[in-house]
Amino acid sequence: MTEFIPEGSRFHALASPFPMKRGGQLHGARIAYETWGTLAADAGNAILIVTGLSPDAHAARHPGNPAPGWWEPMLGPGKPIDTDRWFVVCVNSLGSCKGSTGPASLDPATGRPYRLSFPELSVEDIANAAAGVVRALGIQQLACLIGNSMGGMTALALLLQHPGIARTHINISGSAQALPFSIAIRSLQREAIRLDPAWNGGDYDDAHYPESGMRMARKLGVITYRSALEWDGRFGRVRLDSEQGDDDPFGLEFQVESYLEGHARRFVRRFDPNCYLYLGRAMDWFDLAEYGDGDVMAGLAKIHVPRVLAIGANTDILFPVEQQQQIADGLRAGGADAQFIGMDSPQGHDAFLVDYDRFGPAVGGFLDTLPGL
Amino acid sequence: MTEFIPEGSRFHALASPFPMKRGGQLHGARIAYETWGTLAADAGNAILIVTGLSPDAHAARHPGNPAPGWWEPMLGPGKPIDTDRWFVVCVNSLGSCKGSTGPASLDPATGRPYRLSFPELSVEDIANAAAGVVRALGIQQLACLIGNSMGGMTALALLLQHPGIARTHINISGSAQALPFSIAIRSLQREAIRLDPAWNGGDYDDAHYPESGMRMARKLGVITYRSALEWDGRFGRVRLDSEQGDDDPFGLEFQVESYLEGHARRFVRRFDPNCYLYLGRAMDWFDLAEYGDGDVMAGLAKIHVPRVLAIGANTDILFPVEQQQQIADGLRAGGADAQFIGMDSPQGHDAFLVDYDRFGPAVGGFLDTLPGL
Repeated sequence: MTEFIPEGSRFHALASPFPMKRGGQLHGARIAYETWGTLAADAGNAILIVTGLSPDAHAARHPGNPAPGWWEPMLGPGKPIDTDRWFVVCVNSLGSCKGSTGPASLDPATGRPYRLSFPELSVEDIANAAAGVVRALGIQQLACLIGNSMGGMTALALLLQHPGIARTHINISGSAQALPFSIAIRSLQREAIRLDPAWNGGDYDDAHYPESGMRMARKLGVITYRSALEWDGRFGRVRLDSEQGDDDPFGLEFQVESYLEGHARRFVRRFDPNCYLYLGRAMDWFDLAEYGDGDVMAGLAKIHVPRVLAIGANTDILFPVEQQQQIADGLRAGGADAQFIGMDSPQGHDAFLVDYDRFGPAVGGFLDTLPGL
Repeated sequence: MTEFIPEGSRFHALASPFPMKRGGQLHGARIAYETWGTLAADAGNAILIVTGLSPDAHAARHPGNPAPGWWEPMLGPGKPIDTDRWFVVCVNSLGSCKGSTGPASLDPATGRPYRLSFPELSVEDIANAAAGVVRALGIQQLACLIGNSMGGMTALALLLQHPGIARTHINISGSAQALPFSIAIRSLQREAIRLDPAWNGGDYDDAHYPESGMRMARKLGVITYRSALEWDGRFGRVRLDSEQGDDDPFGLEFQVESYLEGHARRFVRRFDPNCYLYLGRAMDWFDLAEYGDGDVMAGLAKIHVPRVLAIGANTDILFPVEQQQQIADGLRAGGADAQFIGMDSPQGHDAFLVDYDRFGPAVGGFLDTLPGL
């Protein structure tokens, strides 16, 4: 139960109480965010980035934190999201553990961490919290709202709940509703965490931590973030050196096993297990069909945003590219000039974090066409 | 640690000692098998079925066991594998727990179960044990060798190690080498079992059994045995009735979660966890490139079998259809008249166990063209 707050984070105090969609409210909650570039006098050059499940708000380096961010090649002077032109805000999601209030934060009512007493979290809450940051910065309308993965859901909820908040939208590897394969994967990740005796009903600490459950959950995630095609080329059947491997016939032997282990080790102590449960379930629950009398396309058509780019990777098994096609089609039905691009990217769901040769020009090309300020 | 032996099983005593590819040998080992139909006087009408990871030898009902088998719609009088014409043998794999010797069996040297003292198991060993059954039944050459999933690997090993053992071969959703995505999935399944404290280094019993580890492993398997496409249509976002679900926000809520839970419950006490580890690792290790100077196509070309049908489902993520295409191409290079069919079947890797409308005619059509006896 720890929060991991990047150096140089800024914070926005949410309205208190902050009501939650599924019931309950938060008192004294906050959102961590970071910014790049300079806000124009008319506040017309603002871009908001809402993130996937695990990233913090540190998308790229800035004077307050020179460490490279999770989207470093995309964001900076002269980069696809050009901070010489745009004022960029990235928020850490409500419910996360990277500076925003979530299950790992202290409940002011008790002085102890919320843990499982945190109210049920929905993507709509994450969106409302992000909208609070935008308003607090004096931004009436975003030039562009960019959402990746879970952030693609957050962005759609933001556009739906806050009409007019953005002139344009880029939805990257997002989804208008969770489908059963992705629900099944996240359900299994939660089960792995909850089965770990050290999870202890959510009441763990650094000394008694559900490390093996988190390791399983992360490995399962990494498997679904990439593609079999990429791994065939990248790992094939290559084995570890004898020094790296072990004699156990069921231990690490193949490079792909060691790759998963490395990913898991780097993750497990850097993300709060209860937050993982909450954010995963929020994604499962997300369904724009709720706003369209059970029809997801009708829900999407309730969103009115002038211009849209929806992109994804053809090899994505978690948020299949048909879901980004659906977003473009549904927003077009709501009046948007909406374009869909399915990238021939071998890296699956993670392609937007890796395949900058494809995603950089797509995002940058769209932003370059936006009217000058 | 239990064996699950179908009623009416027959047994073949393997040569003793029975040498294992990766070292060690078995003493007094046996293979469980079942048969259907009548062996012709010249033994020319025999078909052998080698199975996937978990099935027993009870592929279909017969007088010794009237319970429906795991391939009931495929096997019987007038069915695609017509037992009025063919004498059919199905073997339980060496290393399994359904009557054949495996880690759950008693080691005659100690009078106690092998558990992890069972020698390292390879697909080639499973194939050699199956060949022993064929020979013992007086069959010089099979009219057809049929292998499904892991059995597709076993069949290739059989053909390679026992030249001339079959006139024809049907490879269903098989593979000539394990690829990293499937290795990663099986690695995670093993990790789930081994992390369960009740696994206890393989030394569990019915009272202290790694149930949660097996449940996780099975759920992960089921996720990869089907396809996202099928689940979209089958489950969508349908929720459980309030009586079936529970109040826990992280408990079972969606039908897809309940489906996985049901599959897991039916499996966990019906398969031995150590056997699961051994059979999964045997698949990881399987690679016909070993026989082709590092080139899997060259390894396949070392197999000489006159006629081949390789089939699979286009939605299979575990043994992708490109692997069945490769089998057909490689065996053709070895001289076979080889045909490949990629079925437009939504059910993924499990399609051959479910989509009988497609797989029945393909298998039956191939067998019907074989010369009369």
